[in-house]
Amino acid sequence: MDLLSIENPKFLKKFSIKELEQLSAEIRQFLIEKLSVTGGHIGPNLGVVELTISLHKMFDSPKDKFIWDVGHQAYVHKILTGRAKEFDTLRQYKGLSGFPKRSESEHDVWETGHSSTSLSAAMGMVIARDLKGTDEYIVPIIGDGALTGGMALEALNHIGHEQKDIIVVLNDNEMSIAPNVGALHHILGRLRTTGKYHWVKEELEYLLKKIPAVGGKLASTAERLKDSLKYLFVSGMFFEELGFTYFGPIDGHDFQALMENISYAKKTKGPVLVHVITKKGKGYLPAEKDKVGTWHGTGPYKIETGDFVKPKISAPSWSELVSETVRKLARNDERIVAITPAMPVGSKLEKFREEFPDRMFDVGIAEQHAVTLAGGLAAANMKPFLAIYSTFLQRGYDQMVHDICRQNLNVFFGIDRAGLVGADGETHQGVFDIAFLRHIPNIVLMMAKDENEGQHMVYTALKYDEGPIALRYPRGTGLGVPLDPELKEIPIGTWEVLLQGKDAVILTFGTTIKMALDAAKALAKNNVSVRVVNARFLKPLDEKMLLEIFNEGIPILTVEEAVLEGGFGSSVLEFAEKHGFTNLTMKRMGIPDRFIEHGSVEKLLEEIGLTKEGIIKNVLEVIPKKEKGIKYG
Amino acid sequence: MDLLSIENPKFLKKFSIKELEQLSAEIRQFLIEKLSVTGGHIGPNLGVVELTISLHKMFDSPKDKFIWDVGHQAYVHKILTGRAKEFDTLRQYKGLSGFPKRSESEHDVWETGHSSTSLSAAMGMVIARDLKGTDEYIVPIIGDGALTGGMALEALNHIGHEQKDIIVVLNDNEMSIAPNVGALHHILGRLRTTGKYHWVKEELEYLLKKIPAVGGKLASTAERLKDSLKYLFVSGMFFEELGFTYFGPIDGHDFQALMENISYAKKTKGPVLVHVITKKGKGYLPAEKDKVGTWHGTGPYKIETGDFVKPKISAPSWSELVSETVRKLARNDERIVAITPAMPVGSKLEKFREEFPDRMFDVGIAEQHAVTLAGGLAAANMKPFLAIYSTFLQRGYDQMVHDICRQNLNVFFGIDRAGLVGADGETHQGVFDIAFLRHIPNIVLMMAKDENEGQHMVYTALKYDEGPIALRYPRGTGLGVPLDPELKEIPIGTWEVLLQGKDAVILTFGTTIKMALDAAKALAKNNVSVRVVNARFLKPLDEKMLLEIFNEGIPILTVEEAVLEGGFGSSVLEFAEKHGFTNLTMKRMGIPDRFIEHGSVEKLLEEIGLTKEGIIKNVLEVIPKKEKGIKYG
Repeated sequence: MDLLSIENPKFLKKFSIKELEQLSAEIRQFLIEKLSVTGGHIGPNLGVVELTISLHKMFDSPKDKFIWDVGHQAYVHKILTGRAKEFDTLRQYKGLSGFPKRSESEHDVWETGHSSTSLSAAMGMVIARDLKGTDEYIVPIIGDGALTGGMALEALNHIGHEQKDIIVVLNDNEMSIAPNVGALHHILGRLRTTGKYHWVKEELEYLLKKIPAVGGKLASTAERLKDSLKYLFVSGMFFEELGFTYFGPIDGHDFQALMENISYAKKTKGPVLVHVITKKGKGYLPAEKDKVGTWHGTGPYKIETGDFVKPKISAPSWSELVSETVRKLARNDERIVAITPAMPVGSKLEKFREEFPDRMFDVGIAEQHAVTLAGGLAAANMKPFLAIYSTFLQRGYDQMVHDICRQNLNVFFGIDRAGLVGADGETHQGVFDIAFLRHIPNIVLMMAKDENEGQHMVYTALKYDEGPIALRYPRGTGLGVPLDPELKEIPIGTWEVLLQGKDAVILTFGTTIKMALDAAKALAKNNVSVRVVNARFLKPLDEKMLLEIFNEGIPILTVEEAVLEGGFGSSVLEFAEKHGFTNLTMKRMGIPDRFIEHGSVEKLLEEIGLTKEGIIKNVLEVIPKKEKGIKYG
Repeated sequence: MDLLSIENPKFLKKFSIKELEQLSAEIRQFLIEKLSVTGGHIGPNLGVVELTISLHKMFDSPKDKFIWDVGHQAYVHKILTGRAKEFDTLRQYKGLSGFPKRSESEHDVWETGHSSTSLSAAMGMVIARDLKGTDEYIVPIIGDGALTGGMALEALNHIGHEQKDIIVVLNDNEMSIAPNVGALHHILGRLRTTGKYHWVKEELEYLLKKIPAVGGKLASTAERLKDSLKYLFVSGMFFEELGFTYFGPIDGHDFQALMENISYAKKTKGPVLVHVITKKGKGYLPAEKDKVGTWHGTGPYKIETGDFVKPKISAPSWSELVSETVRKLARNDERIVAITPAMPVGSKLEKFREEFPDRMFDVGIAEQHAVTLAGGLAAANMKPFLAIYSTFLQRGYDQMVHDICRQNLNVFFGIDRAGLVGADGETHQGVFDIAFLRHIPNIVLMMAKDENEGQHMVYTALKYDEGPIALRYPRGTGLGVPLDPELKEIPIGTWEVLLQGKDAVILTFGTTIKMALDAAKALAKNNVSVRVVNARFLKPLDEKMLLEIFNEGIPILTVEEAVLEGGFGSSVLEFAEKHGFTNLTMKRMGIPDRFIEHGSVEKLLEEIGLTKEGIIKNVLEVIPKKEKGIKYG
């Protein structure tokens, strides 16, 4: 059929299994073709074609509610709800979002991006439904990876307790983004392998009567259920224990099995868990063969070969630079241990794992645990490096405050994907970390101007032993500058003048340095002399340099690719106030007080005005107004 | 024995059970007496007397490491490690902390206060130990309530996966602070009741061989293991499933049982869980009889009667005022639902639960879930009220950003215990919430000057339907002002001039308003005329009033009982910068960039200088310096 003509999923009701299978093939073909051009989350979506079709056939969206955990697997759902025609704009500025989006469709009832939120949100909708007395089905769809996130486990616990009607679909593909870890994963693994045991209640009861209760006081229970029993009784036991009725495991590519089990689930009272086994990348060989997560989300690729169409880049990615520098230093410092919450590939820690298999811990999607685990290591005099994306560190905020900074523990945080990330959009922009970290006592927060300074900062961080220290770095690659062979320490709280100038000073750091330098060069041609400072420590500030600048009375422009509220610019304002400089001429540039949607980073920066041109405009505004002595802007 | 003479726990090694029992009685007597004067966490500590003694007898602290989850149950540990003599200063300024404190003793290896962190920290220490090749035991002690926190579940998952040696002691008293909720709680409940089943492996294996595997494709597994089996096999199964060797349940007041099982645990490889059943308040009748959590933590009490020695207060507590106003409004708005993460008593939601049992949800210690559950309710057009302590909302920061504010959902947050909380100390001070919330787009953040305005703000919040709105309120009671019989809306983003004045303006809110007014009155006697503004909306600011103030050129003093970095004062600086007011004379008062320890709120405020006198001093500083036109301070 013509996928572009689909308006809503009603047509599925009368489709035969054969027609559904035909549709699946067409959807796969469509996805493989479209994503080869735009890029996107190909692996997860190829895995849920039959599952999504079955859900839309068996339920009545939007009356019934689907809540897609993480949400990057919602492409098939988007196709079935009338959005196939928008796939050419996928993840592009003002185009189709790569995640569920309430503004796009009434079929998107909850927005996601971060993992493990679906069960809590769904439970809220379940309570609302029961209070209102309506009868819609609430169906969260959660991956096995997302299930290890603490909040998903909190929600399972609550759902099991309340015993209200909810149908949880566990989409088990043995991967989160990288292959999964954790005890829960082993349980699911056993379910997969032992899933053919089907017990009959009466027979069990009969047998149970025969089992004698041994009353020996304090008998060691250690070996008790350990080996044989456990492996037999696992089929759903874990979820049954939590109060769910368990269906599965079900072949997630078998329409008959899917529809039958969904049908059973609909008839069951109380919480139900439908355990569906799917294959990530199903139907596209390069993605099917992927064992590490390369095909989880991709850029454009050549369909025939599965080769990625990558822009030619000689510089290393920031993730690689940081993780590789940590690896080098780990050779001479046995105390260095690396931790990642489910991002060994994204954080480029694979080589570290290869070289130091005992010193690398992928804890799964478990950011809270990851942060405090690092704290425990530091408390035991180790030197933990936690690689974590800025947006996911939000999950560990309390642990940063309560465990790390309060105890002033020597943890090195590699805050990856800091700043705008582009196509993943508003759920993933790493723009809050300065604002949510810099008010915590004891933390050192830095960002490098280029990858050479970056490697020195890694060295500095791992030498530093006076408390927590964080290096934030952007998505993507460095500038391609040469790397010094010898690493050196950068004195904490020191900035660096990159360009001298007397009419105005730009305080900036990281990604915006280049545009500030470009702006300064352009302004120099008009005889405006602008100083550019690499404000590489966001906390502590370079107080000495700042006081000199304040005393000089030169107009100041702060530029940051981060939220303005409570950000770096604010810390400069605060410092001025603290020291009584009340006649500052100062202006801050940064990200305004709204969520920034998806699009290329360049396009987004342009929209915000964080560009060379924007800087020129603001420098010119800040200078003449200063002469008037009262106000500008 | 003389408890005050204890230097370290070594003496326990040669104590007989009879002597240990005698010691337990003495410790209980000591605690009951000391806490009747100082107040403190009496219930939890009376419950763990035998457990703590057994741990110190069977292990060698500080070589072996105890990690006390939450930490309010560490009093017995403090007594056994030489701190009995300091109990007269418990929870007082510069006195003994109510929680583990590394600066107090080498036996305190990890500091706590918030729940559910112990397993992650312990796992970090386990990894460190194994990499170093040392052989100490790592023993986290966690309550059944804390176990439902997401990060504890994340840690269980990781520990089960790694299979390293660790001995987790589950202190199961059927309560967190209030009685526990959740599916996990039911499991523990069944363990308690069915704990006498002791299975012999060989017999089970024999029986298992007899159970036929039924191969019927797609047989409904729904009813399968539901009733009989589950109740028989629960004994430790949940933890065994996660990869732990399970010992228990053990009577936590029986030394013989405790020591034997700890001895088994020490000999067992891999993760071990020792399930100990204790009775909160054991040995003191009023605390033993407590069913709701009144004796969890208390002020001073009369030992004979169990009556609390309360200061006479006529005003309602803030928690009560807010929750009761919500209850009243819930009568006319069926969409109002209340949520608490394990704090029904602290948040004074018991009457709401009584009146609306179907509309009140205690989700246990599960702040992340609580926030997003509220989001799900709001997405389904309900009006959720989440009562949560400021310090615990830190756990839900990502959910505030990603789920609530990004989707702009109508959730009403009652941020309780905002500001300094006093005796609980640095882990509990509610001083970060403004800094971690105000940079999130879409949120409205307010604080009332007194309980009458507070009730109007509750009304305003529940009327407001343009996004998330939060009311922060302090620990303790209101001022005792009369309450208007009619509730009214307060226009969002409007401040109020409480006192006119022309020499300086104080912008402040909540608890610090009274000291500002007192300071202004004192200054008036010296002919300094100070305006006092109730800056009740922290976001959005009253932009109209601020612009007027800026244009007036009057010196500004901001005063807040919250961290200065990124706080309310900073938002005023930011607003001035945004509008080009570069000649401001302004000074901010608030909490400096360090963690504030325990002590009475008055004492702490005095230490910080957040007092009437401090305000007078700062007003005087800000005024004359303004005349010089350049700098002050």
